[in-house]
Amino acid sequence: MLERLRSRLEEEMETLAQSPYLARVMEPGFADKRLYAIYMCETYHYTKHNARNQALVATRKEDIPVNYMKYCLHHAEEEAGHEMMAFHDLKKIGIELKLEDLPKPLSSTNALIGYLYYVAENENLFARLGYSYWAERVYEFMQPLLGLMGEGLKIPETAMTFFVQHAEIDAGHAEEVDQIIERFIKNEEDYLAVEATMIASLKLTSKMLDEVFEEFVKIKEGKPTRYTFLEQLGIN
Amino acid sequence: MLERLRSRLEEEMETLAQSPYLARVMEPGFADKRLYAIYMCETYHYTKHNARNQALVATRKEDIPVNYMKYCLHHAEEEAGHEMMAFHDLKKIGIELKLEDLPKPLSSTNALIGYLYYVAENENLFARLGYSYWAERVYEFMQPLLGLMGEGLKIPETAMTFFVQHAEIDAGHAEEVDQIIERFIKNEEDYLAVEATMIASLKLTSKMLDEVFEEFVKIKEGKPTRYTFLEQLGIN
Amino acid sequence: MLERLRSRLEEEMETLAQSPYLARVMEPGFADKRLYAIYMCETYHYTKHNARNQALVATRKEDIPVNYMKYCLHHAEEEAGHEMMAFHDLKKIGIELKLEDLPKPLSSTNALIGYLYYVAENENLFARLGYSYWAERVYEFMQPLLGLMGEGLKIPETAMTFFVQHAEIDAGHAEEVDQIIERFIKNEEDYLAVEATMIASLKLTSKMLDEVFEEFVKIKEGKPTRYTFLEQLGIN
Amino acid sequence: MLERLRSRLEEEMETLAQSPYLARVMEPGFADKRLYAIYMCETYHYTKHNARNQALVATRKEDIPVNYMKYCLHHAEEEAGHEMMAFHDLKKIGIELKLEDLPKPLSSTNALIGYLYYVAENENLFARLGYSYWAERVYEFMQPLLGLMGEGLKIPETAMTFFVQHAEIDAGHAEEVDQIIERFIKNEEDYLAVEATMIASLKLTSKMLDEVFEEFVKIKEGKPTRYTFLEQLGIN
Repeated sequence: MLERLRSRLEEEMETLAQSPYLARVMEPGFADKRLYAIYMCETYHYTKHNARNQALVATRKEDIPVNYMKYCLHHAEEEAGHEMMAFHDLKKIGIELKLEDLPKPLSSTNALIGYLYYVAENENLFARLGYSYWAERVYEFMQPLLGLMGEGLKIPETAMTFFVQHAEIDAGHAEEVDQIIERFIKNEEDYLAVEATMIASLKLTSKMLDEVFEEFVKIKEGKPTRYTFLEQLGIN
Repeated sequence: MLERLRSRLEEEMETLAQSPYLARVMEPGFADKRLYAIYMCETYHYTKHNARNQALVATRKEDIPVNYMKYCLHHAEEEAGHEMMAFHDLKKIGIELKLEDLPKPLSSTNALIGYLYYVAENENLFARLGYSYWAERVYEFMQPLLGLMGEGLKIPETAMTFFVQHAEIDAGHAEEVDQIIERFIKNEEDYLAVEATMIASLKLTSKMLDEVFEEFVKIKEGKPTRYTFLEQLGIN
Repeated sequence: MLERLRSRLEEEMETLAQSPYLARVMEPGFADKRLYAIYMCETYHYTKHNARNQALVATRKEDIPVNYMKYCLHHAEEEAGHEMMAFHDLKKIGIELKLEDLPKPLSSTNALIGYLYYVAENENLFARLGYSYWAERVYEFMQPLLGLMGEGLKIPETAMTFFVQHAEIDAGHAEEVDQIIERFIKNEEDYLAVEATMIASLKLTSKMLDEVFEEFVKIKEGKPTRYTFLEQLGIN
Repeated sequence: MLERLRSRLEEEMETLAQSPYLARVMEPGFADKRLYAIYMCETYHYTKHNARNQALVATRKEDIPVNYMKYCLHHAEEEAGHEMMAFHDLKKIGIELKLEDLPKPLSSTNALIGYLYYVAENENLFARLGYSYWAERVYEFMQPLLGLMGEGLKIPETAMTFFVQHAEIDAGHAEEVDQIIERFIKNEEDYLAVEATMIASLKLTSKMLDEVFEEFVKIKEGKPTRYTFLEQLGIN
């Protein structure tokens, strides 16, 4: 089942890689630190809910295999507070602001957040594994983008903790997810729920990235923005 | 504020109207009853949650203005069971199946459902009005599509109760929503929450329609489908 | 089933009527307006949640018979805001305070509130009817107590709206509950869930009344109290 | 604050120790294994929810101090599955039954369960610590009762894992709770929320024990019982 899931993920990633927005982001001179900052702001928002919606799976009233319950709680504990890495990175590229002054999540970010809570509370008991499956191994797909950010946008490594440190932590997590899937996903119904959640959360994340891009373009065009803190970067 | 919201809705609807998928749907000979059936199936799924997520607003632990609470409960009561109209329409075009045999919601349908629960439970107390605002007046935007279905796809009116009867009921609802917005939305923060929910739920609905279209195209191409009941329509 | 429930309720009410606390409350000269005020304060607290936990039944993800769903929403709408009657009565006996200055609920009040939410969300779909069953007809059991309050404690009728007006409204509700029980409670499992909720919520209410009594006794003994607003009544 | 809480707990425990039911339980020849079995059945029920309601605290949407969040998740993980000790003990005293054949919780057990969910989801963020505070150190208060069970009722130690092993595990937990209280409970409002939850959950547990006792008395008197599995013990 892991192979099937892996091949489904690669297929989906290929489709996403053809996004016209992504091509423009990779064009030399198009992107700048403001795009990274907007992205970190939204990353802060959805990441804040990851530990919570993961823990929620373990609070369902139905019978839950004890070891799956423990996995959910343990994994939630490891994710707790990771949103602060994104906030740290935002500050490290030169933005001073307080947590409470962050703009609210974009609507596509809220859609991702809301969907994951719904899955955690209501869908197949194992469905959320589909989100963990790709989220914990997304870094391998992101190499070109990380390269761009480091070199092209001149983001110092100290402002990339969310990606760099997270990638290390998540390598371990990806293995754990594989083990949990192998251990608990035994029938087609459970597998399909995991796969559906993988695809849906990936698409919602992709829509979030699109909206991040669109916000950046608006700013480049001099339109009003919710990300007023970007002025601090002094880019025009 | 109603004018501002109205103009924002029209702007968004124009963007959606430019969807390449929509153009293909309108091409003579492209669509058939199977597209309508898939759409009704997903409509059943998300509609089933509308009364529930509407009622949920009234269960929030914070202080809620009594008349807004009553509106939420009253509106929820009126929406209760409307999913059965979609199921009825499905049967009327010639499909025999039991409720429990309907395929599960598409992942984009689940995203819409999950987002609305999240908004109802966690976002601004009035945010869900942004969903009602467009959902109750969407029928005026749908005239060309309804024309296509009636004539082009030869769907009899008895199999269009969800649209026809709903449009009548919802005309009254749209007025009520306007009144509630005028009465309770007094500041920019509340307005922006309503607008954000309008845009986000509209986009998620649009993604659902896209996925419905994609499923239909797959079927036309002879690929395997989750909508096995479509075979009953005898179209190839 | 209604007769069986009725006879079970009477049995339980007889047990509660033998409470030693109740006997003391009825002793001439023992109680005063402060007891009534404490009771109204706690009544405000639990009543505030009644519409909410009633509506919550209608938000459950499982299949719900449409007419039962509508009943829950309709009944919730009718209960919305009734806590303000209790707050109004508190002010009418001569206490000036703002809603936000009310002391928090007693722990036994919170136990009742918490239990009803749990039942509404998790127990048998019809279980909450057991609470409505007795709560809507409790006034007939309360005649002696109401007499005491009106005459003995010299509470004017304008400060007894929660009881007087509520009793009138609830007479209609009691009939509706009977009809709903007759219509939907068809098997022993459902009946037992209704009965268990009736007994449990009645006992929790009785514990709340006990704690109200104990708080009153503490005040009479000159001990410190959370109900500082009682000083306004000028009783020593 | 720990001393204040400790002294408040001892005060409450003294009141509970004066329960007339407890005196009868300690009378030689009164109790037998059936009382223990009923108690283990209810213990199974409420214990099943302890990890869940503990984890729920960490899923609240508000800001949560990261270390408190981690504590909640870690503690929940340690409690996961402990209800199986109670079920194991039930089988070890000679009862054969499947999990799904256990009778449903008594209404007082449901009141405790429901209250703890309410506290976890809605009350002060730290309030649930009041439950942990006493639950993790209750074993020291239970020595006489444990003595009775071991010797008087001839319950073998292998059928007392919930108490014996749990007491060992919980000694460590009690220390952790103390540390967390010292670290996070800084003001009177938080302290009072912890204390109120301690008292309320203790009283609800005490009511559960009373109902266990009453069920046992009914059985001794030959009345019908929900605990039909007790027949297997062959006591009359």
